[in-house]
Amino acid sequence: MSPEPQTANDRITSPRSARIRAAAKLTRRSWRAKEGRFLAEGPQSVREALVAAAERAGRVRVRVFEVFVTDEARERHPDLLDLAARARVRVHTIAAELVPEISDTVASQGVIAVCATLDVPLTEVVTGDSRLVVVLSQVRDPGNAGTVLRVADAAGADAVVLTSSSVDAYNPKTVRSTAGSLFHVPVVTGVGLSEVAELGRARGLQVLAADAHPPAHDLHRPRDTGLDLARPTMWAFGNEAWGLPEKDRAECDGAVAIPIYGRAESLNLGTAAAVCIYESARTAQL
Amino acid sequence: MSPEPQTANDRITSPRSARIRAAAKLTRRSWRAKEGRFLAEGPQSVREALVAAAERAGRVRVRVFEVFVTDEARERHPDLLDLAARARVRVHTIAAELVPEISDTVASQGVIAVCATLDVPLTEVVTGDSRLVVVLSQVRDPGNAGTVLRVADAAGADAVVLTSSSVDAYNPKTVRSTAGSLFHVPVVTGVGLSEVAELGRARGLQVLAADAHPPAHDLHRPRDTGLDLARPTMWAFGNEAWGLPEKDRAECDGAVAIPIYGRAESLNLGTAAAVCIYESARTAQL
Repeated sequence: MSPEPQTANDRITSPRSARIRAAAKLTRRSWRAKEGRFLAEGPQSVREALVAAAERAGRVRVRVFEVFVTDEARERHPDLLDLAARARVRVHTIAAELVPEISDTVASQGVIAVCATLDVPLTEVVTGDSRLVVVLSQVRDPGNAGTVLRVADAAGADAVVLTSSSVDAYNPKTVRSTAGSLFHVPVVTGVGLSEVAELGRARGLQVLAADAHPPAHDLHRPRDTGLDLARPTMWAFGNEAWGLPEKDRAECDGAVAIPIYGRAESLNLGTAAAVCIYESARTAQL
Repeated sequence: MSPEPQTANDRITSPRSARIRAAAKLTRRSWRAKEGRFLAEGPQSVREALVAAAERAGRVRVRVFEVFVTDEARERHPDLLDLAARARVRVHTIAAELVPEISDTVASQGVIAVCATLDVPLTEVVTGDSRLVVVLSQVRDPGNAGTVLRVADAAGADAVVLTSSSVDAYNPKTVRSTAGSLFHVPVVTGVGLSEVAELGRARGLQVLAADAHPPAHDLHRPRDTGLDLARPTMWAFGNEAWGLPEKDRAECDGAVAIPIYGRAESLNLGTAAAVCIYESARTAQL
């Protein structure tokens, strides 16, 4: 990145600015992977990123390189400047016209942070102490992935794994849907379900496929089939359209179906994951 | 609607067709309300509409006026033609170029049905036999409303109420997110929360606000505060950004918070509703 003058009134107005051009490239997945950086958009995401970066003691090691804000956003969210100062992160004021260059959504509200990608090695977070791990296999919709990550965070999960064929954890829509949880829960990417399941089992977790195909345990009648949700559990959720393929179900120790009391055929991925993950959390804390 | 010839090869190719123009108007909320009709888009929604229309005995009285399909969709979903015949619904083949006229999404996949709006009076569905009623107050996102409606259906809810300031139940995105559940669960619209809560109480339901503001019961520790989820329950969910305002909480018998075991601030509306509604269903069936 070419050096640019840092002054108290650091202000970028040209789309040809090297900083803007470098950030703009991060709207593409291939560049995010190459650079090991991604964009967090919107005051909530940026706030969580800065808080986590200032902490330096959280479970997720967050590094924020720089923050871009418009004049309007600067005025509207003065707390972000304080947080950036505390985290020792440089803030650039940018012309509002530059926002679309580095943001693919209207949701950024003029606040965008450049962060280091967060994913950690599988073996670092799936350990003998793990109680709850969430695995998304071949999930394609960024909003769904983010929603499940947020639920996993709320339920106190130890880690979330996105398998190699899943959506990018750093897709702007994924980041936004996590509502900051991406900066709270350790995330593992680029591994296969069989590797994850094998390690989980070796570390003492039961590996459960959320899957309605029989034979499956009934989530609400665990005793009928000897399901023990109080045990450390790794939940595996499949693609939003076709679920977990047979091959992936076979990697798990068992399948669990959410009972349908009405006439819906199924739940969508986000709500199904919420019901399963929270049922684990409820049972484990009893 | 001007009469058009009905033949075995009924085919519409002109955007000036009276049928297409009449259907196109239904992409606007005001026209849906005026005409008492709406569009169901996509093979899954249309299939569920036709199945429900043929039944004539379901809890939801579904009427489908006509179905538009492209040649490609006709070939890909031959079952829809059988279902339409069984429900005595006329199918028009339309030129693919006409689809955007009557569909605001790419998700229609060339299959669109014109249906009669489904909402029923509040007093018809909130009765002394009701066990589970879901109320959405001031929910604005159509996808969220549809997601909760689908969860309510899956959990066996007796009815879903969208208060007068909520998103339109017949918004194409709402309809699609219900994945057919709009044709399974009775829906009430255009009433205020206080009216709904009052009737619910009069019919023996406890009215619970899903709301983290203290004082709230802990969903997972009901005994601590004497919460009995096995009782007939009316759940009230508020707006996705600001929840239930104080005034609305006061209409309820109590508030229930989903415990957060990790660091997320909250869940999103769809997943929060899923956790609460399924916890009711689980407790009631024990």
